[in-house]
Amino acid sequence: MSRFAYVNGAYVPHEHASVHIEDRGFQFADSVYEVIYLYKGKLIDAEAHLKRLEHSLNELDMDMPKSRAAFMVTIKELVRRNRVKTALIYVQVTRGSAVRDFSYPENTMPSVVMTARRVAPFDANVPLKGIKVMSLPDIRWARCDIKTTSLLAASMSKQKAQDNGFDDAWLVTDDQFVTEGTSNNAWILREDGRLQTRKPSHEILNGITRQAIIKLAGQKGIEILEDAFSLDEAKKAKEAFVTSSSACVKPVIQIDDTTIADGKPGLFTQQIAKIYADFLEE
Amino acid sequence: MSRFAYVNGAYVPHEHASVHIEDRGFQFADSVYEVIYLYKGKLIDAEAHLKRLEHSLNELDMDMPKSRAAFMVTIKELVRRNRVKTALIYVQVTRGSAVRDFSYPENTMPSVVMTARRVAPFDANVPLKGIKVMSLPDIRWARCDIKTTSLLAASMSKQKAQDNGFDDAWLVTDDQFVTEGTSNNAWILREDGRLQTRKPSHEILNGITRQAIIKLAGQKGIEILEDAFSLDEAKKAKEAFVTSSSACVKPVIQIDDTTIADGKPGLFTQQIAKIYADFLEE
Repeated sequence: MSRFAYVNGAYVPHEHASVHIEDRGFQFADSVYEVIYLYKGKLIDAEAHLKRLEHSLNELDMDMPKSRAAFMVTIKELVRRNRVKTALIYVQVTRGSAVRDFSYPENTMPSVVMTARRVAPFDANVPLKGIKVMSLPDIRWARCDIKTTSLLAASMSKQKAQDNGFDDAWLVTDDQFVTEGTSNNAWILREDGRLQTRKPSHEILNGITRQAIIKLAGQKGIEILEDAFSLDEAKKAKEAFVTSSSACVKPVIQIDDTTIADGKPGLFTQQIAKIYADFLEE
Repeated sequence: MSRFAYVNGAYVPHEHASVHIEDRGFQFADSVYEVIYLYKGKLIDAEAHLKRLEHSLNELDMDMPKSRAAFMVTIKELVRRNRVKTALIYVQVTRGSAVRDFSYPENTMPSVVMTARRVAPFDANVPLKGIKVMSLPDIRWARCDIKTTSLLAASMSKQKAQDNGFDDAWLVTDDQFVTEGTSNNAWILREDGRLQTRKPSHEILNGITRQAIIKLAGQKGIEILEDAFSLDEAKKAKEAFVTSSSACVKPVIQIDDTTIADGKPGLFTQQIAKIYADFLEE
């Protein structure tokens, strides 16, 4: 199973894919990334991902190292060389290598790294597996809207949840409102039948799957409330789930010690998953 | 001027020193580091730096990849091969390479990377150059006591200060108290003659130079107050300075639009610098 990665213009065997130790992605987390879902040969919302990549870069005073069209050419070639049909395409852009200094170096050549990893296709025709989440204080920085590789806080939180027997964490502000999961957006089905998820701000990443579901659910007449919900409201929700490009839609069946609904993935969540799966198949 | 870096057991030419693209230091900022000052052949407070490295690793559920004594052997060999007398020794330890996942992988081999970069020796016998700092909101995460490479917020802040004509930033909490500089601890000389710097907590890095100066100044009978000071108090201070392993002692002569004292490095700061320089020469 030989795999290829893309590193700065070259397609190289995965095991030899490397960056310099003074790459600012390595020394400062001075880099941004995207994960694009390749589903049965189709790149899902690739344009939206590349637009967000550009937004993230711009927030760090970086330009796109090449056009979105050029990115697409590279991604497609990487997919072809790895012979994958359903995969996660990981794209990372760093400020490049420079003598170590906290301020931004001038005239560096950005590093562009991509990998393609085969995954099973999302299938909403089988019952989805629910996950248990643990609420944890959101200790991340104040710019979670930028999709950077400064991910240690999220990583620590997911690990802490798993160490405590949960699958993931839901991060909670000081005033006990849920921001999001460690790498996904958090949703609840309210008692009043509306779907609720936090409004985009500096505190969360505005997920591409999140945006797709808002649009798709809206088209089906499902009413959406974009507003923060408290941990307490989440625990009282009829259903709960998370969304991300890699997990698509995943039911949440427990929050801390509280079982959500009857502890099984809810019918509404399954319906949302089906709507999203139909969109993937389009 | 050939330079050598140390990467996972090997001393390699600097330009070829690399890590894998799936190193968690590169993808998650899942790594910690230290900068040790080599002054005229002497490693300053190396033991304290390696102890802190161990503390940082432990906070991320990692063990030291080798003993402090073994680290010292490697550092000394790196110094020898680079033929440096006064230099910054950069040591970074990551969780190693693994298939990308937010939770910690098991049984990975940590990556250990070191570089040695020649610098001019600190000299307190010449008048020190003062710096201007800009106050900026502290947007970093909630665990600044761990010396991780999750440094993007600090990097952005230093760059923003420089874009505005300053040399560095002083980071300020919501309630307008100074935490620290982007890569140094912040100090003021109070009207009452006491030296003040913030107490160690999750909000700052407990600098090795900071600790050394507390000890050295104490020995000289200088009274130290370890407590947070407000931005307003800083602007009214008689003198101000920053400390770090790479800069040692650096006077602050302006905070935002406010000139500190008469806009020249203060005599007291120069005295602290002299005390520290004597310690370096010991």
